Amino acid sequence: MSEPYKRVALIGLGLIASSMFWAMRRIGTQTHVSGYARSAETRETARRIGLCDTVCETLPEVVRDADLIVLAVPVGAMGAVAKEMAPYLKPGATVTDVGSVKQTVIDAVGPHLPDTVHFVPGHPMAGTEHSGPESGFDSLFDNRWTLIVPPSGTDEEAVQRLEAYWQGLGAMTERMEIEHHDLVCAVVSHIPHLIAYTMVGVADDLSRVSDQEVIKFSAAGFRDFTRIAASDPTMWRDVFLTNKDATIEMLGRFTEELFALQRAIRTGDGEQLHAYFTRTRAIRRGILEAGQDTDAPDFGRTKVK
Amino acid sequence: MSEPYKRVALIGLGLIASSMFWAMRRIGTQTHVSGYARSAETRETARRIGLCDTVCETLPEVVRDADLIVLAVPVGAMGAVAKEMAPYLKPGATVTDVGSVKQTVIDAVGPHLPDTVHFVPGHPMAGTEHSGPESGFDSLFDNRWTLIVPPSGTDEEAVQRLEAYWQGLGAMTERMEIEHHDLVCAVVSHIPHLIAYTMVGVADDLSRVSDQEVIKFSAAGFRDFTRIAASDPTMWRDVFLTNKDATIEMLGRFTEELFALQRAIRTGDGEQLHAYFTRTRAIRRGILEAGQDTDAPDFGRTKVK
Repeated sequence: MSEPYKRVALIGLGLIASSMFWAMRRIGTQTHVSGYARSAETRETARRIGLCDTVCETLPEVVRDADLIVLAVPVGAMGAVAKEMAPYLKPGATVTDVGSVKQTVIDAVGPHLPDTVHFVPGHPMAGTEHSGPESGFDSLFDNRWTLIVPPSGTDEEAVQRLEAYWQGLGAMTERMEIEHHDLVCAVVSHIPHLIAYTMVGVADDLSRVSDQEVIKFSAAGFRDFTRIAASDPTMWRDVFLTNKDATIEMLGRFTEELFALQRAIRTGDGEQLHAYFTRTRAIRRGILEAGQDTDAPDFGRTKVK
Repeated sequence: MSEPYKRVALIGLGLIASSMFWAMRRIGTQTHVSGYARSAETRETARRIGLCDTVCETLPEVVRDADLIVLAVPVGAMGAVAKEMAPYLKPGATVTDVGSVKQTVIDAVGPHLPDTVHFVPGHPMAGTEHSGPESGFDSLFDNRWTLIVPPSGTDEEAVQRLEAYWQGLGAMTERMEIEHHDLVCAVVSHIPHLIAYTMVGVADDLSRVSDQEVIKFSAAGFRDFTRIAASDPTMWRDVFLTNKDATIEMLGRFTEELFALQRAIRTGDGEQLHAYFTRTRAIRRGILEAGQDTDAPDFGRTKVK
């Protein structure tokens, strides 16, 4: 069994890092956790709510002595952070990240790191529409997958140690090839977010239907899109800019399919529509059987009064 | 104050009609409710679970003596039902429907009805992804809007009586012009459903990403789409075929917007993406403030283990 990390450094104190901290506390590990955020306000909030054992004022300070360094900043910021912290890393330490895109992160971070540390990219497939240091909670990773995406030649023991760490936080882990990771995430995460943003943007933009009407009657389907379209804008801007190829390829597939359905509507092909709408039910069933969503009507939402 | 209906007939015993029945029972009304479904299996289920005071074997039987007749069948079936039941309607009765499209329903139903009855089309903007006689529950309409869409010349007292009825079931009511109704619903309901069906269809259709991967990692955003894409295929086929113009117009707006975002991704215009993703947050806030969704992370879903 791999030895647990004695000292963990969290860089970027948003939803993911704060949930990692609370999940470590939940299992009562003796790990010392230091944290750093670029914004003084975030560091202040972290201190106020007891997020991390030590909140540091600088990058050199937070990574010094750490056995595991977690980059939990937007994908577009990871290269600069890696460069700045690199000289202060402890030999033998592991650097990981939680970015939603892997090829770009590996290209941006890898070259800055000294040979004396292990770089094991990761991606917890978990989140909510909330962001910031106060949005974390200890069960975020329970029964969710964390993908481990080591470039070839990565030290096997370092990989296993990181896997054990994530499993300790409640996650299931799976290894994936870099390119395949970016494609899978385009399908299950990036395109859904872009589509949701677009749907909400269209509704917000119509002159013939008022904002007020869109809001009042949103329970008819629309509101489901608004949740993920309320996700962190900086994080998502970076995702699309750094997973450009897979995103654009998948968007092509999506619009192709949408045009086929539009054509069926225009020509009145009820049979095609019915067959399509029946087929999509099977995927929902698969998700419910895999324990990845609740079968309660309306996601089991509580009605607000 | 309008006099409550003494006898209500529910035609089509799915999610909406069964929820109407349970909502009537919840308020302890003395109303007698008769029900009819074309399928013998559905009638059998209704009898087994105590849905309706009387489950009838024929249309003439269910509408005879009813003061309110509710057409709760798929939009494409309403014309035929109206034609068949018309000779048996009690003079002075009100006929309403719960269809998601109004112009087509009015065109299909109206001409069959005798002058001795009132036709007041309606549309409860409520539902879940479940369907069938066992999917109803008494709070479905609470704090949700029911749109009342009377053609010009409809008897005012009959309209007010139907409004009072829906309010009794927990709904808020609002009157709307026919054409505007079909446009609003295209935006808040029909297009979101079509987009969700498309998104799920694309994922189901990829050869480079397996079904199993799509299901396993669905919590990263995709699964939100699968709920409404599990809705009743017949109902939705009919909606798209009967609200063709508004649907195709709104689809045009949607793809235009999607292409603009795709272009921003291709050209690396991070500023445009960030501004867009920030703007969409406001709509989410509006929906939360209007009490039309919960602010609990992830819709307050319970994690399945």
